[in-house]
Amino acid sequence: MKRLAILGSTGSIGQQTLDIVRDLPDRFEVVGLAGGENAGLLAEQVSQFQPKLVYSTIKPSLPAKTKFSSMEEIAIHPEVDLVVIATTGKTGLAPTLAAIRAGKKIALANKEILAMAGEIITAEAKRHQAQILPIDSEHSAIWQCLRGEKAEVARLILTASGGPFYRRLPSQLATVTVEEALQHPTWKMGKKVTIDSATLMNKGLEAIEARWLFSVPFSKIEIVIHPQSIVHSLVEFTDGALKAQLSFPDMHLPIQYALSYPKRLPNSTLPRLDLVLVNSLTFEAVNYDKFPCLELALDAGKKGGTYPSVLCAADEVATELFLAKHINFPGIAEIIAKTINLHRGIMNPTLDEILDAYTWARETALRVASKESLCYKQ
Amino acid sequence: MKRLAILGSTGSIGQQTLDIVRDLPDRFEVVGLAGGENAGLLAEQVSQFQPKLVYSTIKPSLPAKTKFSSMEEIAIHPEVDLVVIATTGKTGLAPTLAAIRAGKKIALANKEILAMAGEIITAEAKRHQAQILPIDSEHSAIWQCLRGEKAEVARLILTASGGPFYRRLPSQLATVTVEEALQHPTWKMGKKVTIDSATLMNKGLEAIEARWLFSVPFSKIEIVIHPQSIVHSLVEFTDGALKAQLSFPDMHLPIQYALSYPKRLPNSTLPRLDLVLVNSLTFEAVNYDKFPCLELALDAGKKGGTYPSVLCAADEVATELFLAKHINFPGIAEIIAKTINLHRGIMNPTLDEILDAYTWARETALRVASKESLCYKQ
Repeated sequence: MKRLAILGSTGSIGQQTLDIVRDLPDRFEVVGLAGGENAGLLAEQVSQFQPKLVYSTIKPSLPAKTKFSSMEEIAIHPEVDLVVIATTGKTGLAPTLAAIRAGKKIALANKEILAMAGEIITAEAKRHQAQILPIDSEHSAIWQCLRGEKAEVARLILTASGGPFYRRLPSQLATVTVEEALQHPTWKMGKKVTIDSATLMNKGLEAIEARWLFSVPFSKIEIVIHPQSIVHSLVEFTDGALKAQLSFPDMHLPIQYALSYPKRLPNSTLPRLDLVLVNSLTFEAVNYDKFPCLELALDAGKKGGTYPSVLCAADEVATELFLAKHINFPGIAEIIAKTINLHRGIMNPTLDEILDAYTWARETALRVASKESLCYKQ
Repeated sequence: MKRLAILGSTGSIGQQTLDIVRDLPDRFEVVGLAGGENAGLLAEQVSQFQPKLVYSTIKPSLPAKTKFSSMEEIAIHPEVDLVVIATTGKTGLAPTLAAIRAGKKIALANKEILAMAGEIITAEAKRHQAQILPIDSEHSAIWQCLRGEKAEVARLILTASGGPFYRRLPSQLATVTVEEALQHPTWKMGKKVTIDSATLMNKGLEAIEARWLFSVPFSKIEIVIHPQSIVHSLVEFTDGALKAQLSFPDMHLPIQYALSYPKRLPNSTLPRLDLVLVNSLTFEAVNYDKFPCLELALDAGKKGGTYPSVLCAADEVATELFLAKHINFPGIAEIIAKTINLHRGIMNPTLDEILDAYTWARETALRVASKESLCYKQ
C-alpha cells in the first residue's frame, strides 16, 4: 500500500491519478490533496478519498478528520510515501523541493519545474536520495526503455505528434482560432499543455526536462514527428539498438507506472494497443521554421541559467493572451522571443534568482505584448 | 576479453560473428571454430584467427598450434567462455548439451535445437546454471525488452516480414520459383532459413523457441506481419505498456549483443536506424490460410513431445526437395502435414526418442514425397 499526496488533484493529470487509485484501491491510499480553483470537484474528491490533509486556493469546508494544510506541509507529511506533482507552471516548485528535502519519491507531471530549476532540483534529489519518477508520456517511455540498461545511451529520441497545425502552411498559422488550437489530434490534456503542443513549445520543454532527468547533453536529444502518438519515445544505445515504448495515447498508463514502480500492475481499465488496428506508424523530420517556439525552448535550454525560467514565464503569458484572443498564434513565439532578447541571464542562479527572473519575464512579456500589434484576427 | 567457440563458423551467422570479433579485437578471442563443407573459407578463418581447436566435416590441414577436435570437445574446452551455436538443423544439439553441462554461456542462433528439445535444453541449462542467450533477431528483441523487467508479461509479439510471397494470391503460390523464394525482401540469410521465411515455418519455429526461452505459454505468443523488419519484436506487460526493439535488419547487432551481454559496446560498423528515412512502419494480421506451415509449426509446438522434432525433420526434407526443384512451393506444407499425420507422438521424450523421431520423420517425409505428384512446375 503506497500513500500518496496529489498536488494539483483537480487538473487533468490529478483527476487521472485518482482514477488509478479508484482502479487499484488495495495498492494506493490518498493522504493529501491540493487543488486549484475548482472547489466543487475538490470537495467531491475529498468526500470520496477522505484525505488527512487538503489545500486549496479557495478554502473549502472539510470533513472533521481532514485538516487544511499548505502544499509544503502535505508534501513532507510523514505518512506520505510518494508526492504526485500535477500542478502547472511554477506553483509546484516550492512543494517539490520540500518533498525532495524530506526524501520523498516524486512523481513529476509538471514540465516547468525541471525546465526552470532542473539543476537545483536534480542536485537536491541526489543529495537527499529522493527519486524523481516522470509522468510525462515521453519521459516515462524513455525511463521504461532505460530500465535495466547501463548508461550506454547514444541518443534519446522524443516523439512529437506535431499538434493540430502540423500540416498547415506557414501562411495559414496567423488565422488559426483558439478552438482549433485546443483540438489536439491525439491527446486530451489541459488547455496550457494543449496550446504548448500546438506551438511545439511542449517538446522543447520536454527536451530540457529529459536533459535533467536522464543526465544527457542536448547533443544527444533528438525530436521526431510521429503523428499517431503511439511510440511515446525511443532510446538508441551505443551499439545502435533502439528501444521504444508504445501504448494507446492515454495518460493513465504513465501515471500508473510512476505510482506502481518498480512493479507493473494489471489494470483492465487501461487501454490495450492493437498494432494491426493501428496499421501504420509514421515518422517525419521536424519543421523548425514553422514552429519557432521549439527552437526558442532548445536555445534557452542550451543557454541555461535563468533563460529557461524566462522562457516558461513568457510562454505562460503568451499562451494566456492567445487563449483570451488578444494575440494570434504566431504572436506567441514573437512575445517569447522578444522577452528572451530583453533578458540579461544569470548563470548558476539560486532559486530566488530563478523566481525573480520568472516574475520579471511575466511582466516583460505583458509589456511586450501591449506594445505590439499582435491582434487576434478571426 | 571473452573467449569464444563458434560452431558453424562458415555459415551466415558464423561469418557475421567473426565480423564482430574483427571489429572488436580487444573484446573477443576465438578459441575454437567448427565449420561444415566450405573447407576453403574455414582454412581462411583458421589462418586469420589462429584458434586452438578446429572441427570440420572435411578434415583440413591445420597450423602447428591448432588441434583437430570434435564439436563437443570444442564446446566444453576450459578456455571457452561462450559457445556460439550457429549450426543448422540438429547438428548443434549434442555440442549444445555438452556446453550446457559444462556450465558455458550459449549464444544460440540455431532454431531447431530449442524447437526439437526445448524442454530438455532449458531444464539442463537451469540445472547447470548455463545461460542461453538468443541470437535470432526476434528473440534478441524480446530479451532486450525484458531486460530489467520483472516477470509481468502479458504477451510476446513476434514480428514477421511475411517473406517474398506475402502479397501473392494463394493461386499464384504453386508456380513460384526457387530463385524467387530465395529473394528475401529484408534479410540476407542462409538458404534454409530464407525458404522457412517464405513459408512462414520460420515464425512457427520462433514461437516454439520463444516459449522455451522466455517460459511463456503459447497463449501469450502472438505473431504480426511487419514487412519492413525494423521492429524486431515486442513485449506487452501486464499494465498494457509495450516495449519494442528496433534496428536496421542486420544480424550483426543481435550477434554482438549476445556476445557482449550484459554490456553494450560501441561499434561504428553497425548500421544506425534513421526513423525519418524509414518513414513508415506497418503491421498486418497473419494470413494463416495462405501459409499453412505456420499453423503446422504452432500445432506441433502445442502438442509437444516428439512432434516438433518431426516437424523440423519433415521441413528440412521438404525444403531440400523444393530447393532441388523436385516439389513446388505448396508441396513443402503438404509433405510436412502428411509426415506429422503419420507420426505417433511420444510425450516427455528422452533425447534419444527425439533423435529417433527426427530420423523416422526424414525417412517418412522422403517416402511421402516420392508417392505424391508434387512436381515442380516452372
